[in-house]
Amino acid sequence: MNNYKDYVNHSKRITDINMSMAILGWDQETKMPKNGSKFRAQQLSTLAEISHELSTKKDFGILLNNLNSDNSLNSDQRRNISLSLKAFNKSKKYKSEFIVEESNLVSNAFQQWRLAKEKNDFSIFESSLTKLVDLRIKECEILGYVNHPYDALLDQYEPGLTTNEVDDIFSNVKEFLVPFIKRILRSNKIDDSFFYKKYSNNKQWDFGIELLKKMDYNFDSGRQDLSAHPFSTHFSPEDTRVTTRIDENNLSEMIWSCIHEGGHALYEQGILSENYGLPLGETISLGIHESQSRLWENNVGRSLEFWKHNYESLKKIFPKQLTGVTVDDFYKASNNVKPSLIRTNADELTYHLHVIIRYEIEKALIEGKIKVADLAKIWNLKYYEYLGLEVPSDTLGVLQDIHWSHGSFGYFPTYTIGSFYAAQFFNQAKIDNPNLIKEIENGNNKNLLNWLRKNIHNSGKRLDAHKLCEKITGEKLNFKYFKDYVIDKYSKIYAL
Amino acid sequence: MNNYKDYVNHSKRITDINMSMAILGWDQETKMPKNGSKFRAQQLSTLAEISHELSTKKDFGILLNNLNSDNSLNSDQRRNISLSLKAFNKSKKYKSEFIVEESNLVSNAFQQWRLAKEKNDFSIFESSLTKLVDLRIKECEILGYVNHPYDALLDQYEPGLTTNEVDDIFSNVKEFLVPFIKRILRSNKIDDSFFYKKYSNNKQWDFGIELLKKMDYNFDSGRQDLSAHPFSTHFSPEDTRVTTRIDENNLSEMIWSCIHEGGHALYEQGILSENYGLPLGETISLGIHESQSRLWENNVGRSLEFWKHNYESLKKIFPKQLTGVTVDDFYKASNNVKPSLIRTNADELTYHLHVIIRYEIEKALIEGKIKVADLAKIWNLKYYEYLGLEVPSDTLGVLQDIHWSHGSFGYFPTYTIGSFYAAQFFNQAKIDNPNLIKEIENGNNKNLLNWLRKNIHNSGKRLDAHKLCEKITGEKLNFKYFKDYVIDKYSKIYAL
Repeated sequence: MNNYKDYVNHSKRITDINMSMAILGWDQETKMPKNGSKFRAQQLSTLAEISHELSTKKDFGILLNNLNSDNSLNSDQRRNISLSLKAFNKSKKYKSEFIVEESNLVSNAFQQWRLAKEKNDFSIFESSLTKLVDLRIKECEILGYVNHPYDALLDQYEPGLTTNEVDDIFSNVKEFLVPFIKRILRSNKIDDSFFYKKYSNNKQWDFGIELLKKMDYNFDSGRQDLSAHPFSTHFSPEDTRVTTRIDENNLSEMIWSCIHEGGHALYEQGILSENYGLPLGETISLGIHESQSRLWENNVGRSLEFWKHNYESLKKIFPKQLTGVTVDDFYKASNNVKPSLIRTNADELTYHLHVIIRYEIEKALIEGKIKVADLAKIWNLKYYEYLGLEVPSDTLGVLQDIHWSHGSFGYFPTYTIGSFYAAQFFNQAKIDNPNLIKEIENGNNKNLLNWLRKNIHNSGKRLDAHKLCEKITGEKLNFKYFKDYVIDKYSKIYAL
Repeated sequence: MNNYKDYVNHSKRITDINMSMAILGWDQETKMPKNGSKFRAQQLSTLAEISHELSTKKDFGILLNNLNSDNSLNSDQRRNISLSLKAFNKSKKYKSEFIVEESNLVSNAFQQWRLAKEKNDFSIFESSLTKLVDLRIKECEILGYVNHPYDALLDQYEPGLTTNEVDDIFSNVKEFLVPFIKRILRSNKIDDSFFYKKYSNNKQWDFGIELLKKMDYNFDSGRQDLSAHPFSTHFSPEDTRVTTRIDENNLSEMIWSCIHEGGHALYEQGILSENYGLPLGETISLGIHESQSRLWENNVGRSLEFWKHNYESLKKIFPKQLTGVTVDDFYKASNNVKPSLIRTNADELTYHLHVIIRYEIEKALIEGKIKVADLAKIWNLKYYEYLGLEVPSDTLGVLQDIHWSHGSFGYFPTYTIGSFYAAQFFNQAKIDNPNLIKEIENGNNKNLLNWLRKNIHNSGKRLDAHKLCEKITGEKLNFKYFKDYVIDKYSKIYAL
């Protein structure tokens, strides 16, 4: 390996392995028969190990260091090299044994979590989770950090984001949201009972596909399947998939999970194929990724204008269930603010309290201030404190999310950060295109997608998240945009 | 690497990669959106290269050679080492460049073949196929052979089988089958027109699933999907999948392709999980594999007894289409001998003439006696000579099979060999269990499956194909068993 071309080839090889893992993962969640899990875990672990071996190859490191001081490269090439070198130096910190241990722990934890959730018994998951937390604490030391060990975990998902910054943001969020939600809860009630009638599986499925098509999700480069937990994944910009789940007694779950995952997938479909295997062929961060899903789900998909266009076709599919429900009723119901137990079903305001609870727990776990054994108790206390709810069971409480069973800590905050980026980007998109809202009302989302493609998707990792935000909106991430959006929207809905 | 345990671990790693490739391949044929093919080809090529690197690792070779003279190993361990060493020495003959070239050629050839078939124009496929044939000719030299270059290709699929042996067998086949088929064609005609009524997609699908369940195919360790070409594949004994295709205007296609692929899958489900990654955890050869699919498809699935049990439930699903069709009519129709253009739809007698045509063409291509450019012409001449048919188009002629586009040469003869093994094994199973036919008539296939498990499936590669055959039946592969089966069965059906 001695030139930029060799770098590109090696980098593509690593990506090929990572994408193969993603394919095995997609299959595992959507198609794999139940007895397949043991060998699948082993196959994934082997691929992870090989990916790590390739990512930390000595020759590759030498090449990256050489190219990093090669002035003949253009700025895109320099950006690729700089990010790959950063990733190399990070990967080098992990021993192969860590990768294998992690892979095995996660496979095992996932099984235990599933069982625990099924049996409604957190204690089944406790030992696996304790091991995973210990592993992450060890990982913080391996990776290193300046101020707080949790910084090392945040950095995996949102490069550069620190615990201090999250603390700052979340204190603003609480300061605004907690009283604002209280005001809403004291005002008029919204009737969303029609969402919980019986909506047939097949018809919901068809409407979900229709929604994805309306968003210009390209089915020649993707597909939708069912899974226990909706997700999106990609194997290249030409093969970017989404999943959904359908509850026959809850129409809203399918609708906004389809739009949400569709938003993620549109980001991946907007990555340039020519950059496959390179940092410029990757999305920036989970926060920016989430900004795309949230922008479609909330700023677009929970707007009155979007439903002015789409409500009629929904009503055609479910005329009986939606008898007497106007588009305005539907719009209000889809923005009904109501503290609830399950994060993924939460409205776009209380949602962030769910995230804050998880963040506070994770931080305390990593600091060693609380024990996994006490997690269910702590969880329930916080749900009472922030949302005023009694948690009736572990399944509806501490066991609800898949993330910890995957060993993902430091991930949750990006959901909230993403929503704030979404508000800020969407505000800018409206400034850049004053017809945007009118277009959405006419069922034309193409210009919005083009704006996202041009400003965000196509450039991959060319800029860091905060620089991208500055470039597009003229300033860093600013909670104000979310706050203004929320005040404006909900004051009208609830006549505050 | 310095002991048997290290050998097992490395061997499992190689298998993990190969199984990952199988998962990517399954997805490609069943689920992948159409734009996904370019990057998928690249991902598969990278995995192939890594599998080859691992398979030819110097340390691994040294370890295998050391263990090969280690007398402390038990006989199973020695068998594993001996076969792995043979595979290692074979892999070593290939340079990485060959593997990559092959992978790229195959991806490209597959696209060209698909296009050519769609456009009914062999010339589109000609250049890719020429390159693949040249690659295989080169490969014969790389691998080496004693008598005939084609031996090297046969050995890939049916270890030890030679061109001379195939010539011998096929001359027996022709000598018997050609006049026997002529006698049948001169006798009474069978009415199979009811197969070509309209049979709805969904109902056919359901019946296919029912058939697989009747065979004791385990859906907890497998699944069925649709694909353009039915196939079976496995990622471990715990995840062994089948595919089928459904033609609404031809019921027979789905039925016997389901049973056929089910037979393959039962073999893989019968491999012992504890031997995953080792030769004892692999099936013996394509011929033995095909013996399992053919035994279920023909010896069981086209028997009167099988349908005495299953016909009623089929008739319940399609009462209108099968009005007036007795189980005897159904049995005869499913054994209707009629020369036809498409191999996969052929009856179990003319089928072998399709195979012989392909064998003769492949042999001549590898010998350099004919050119790819003349293939359509040669194909059509042979179809006239052996089956008395005019081939109306390339799509229904030389382009019908997927095999050459995958670069598979030397594969077709195993279909015929497999049918003969099937007849010989089934004959023995009936001797070992005189109630077998009665059990099948009662819908009980468990003892048959147990017999196959015990005698064939569970032992993996413990014995070579011909030794296995001797062990089970007391003699080597003998065409007599197929011939006797055919004479007995068809003399009754056609009152010869």
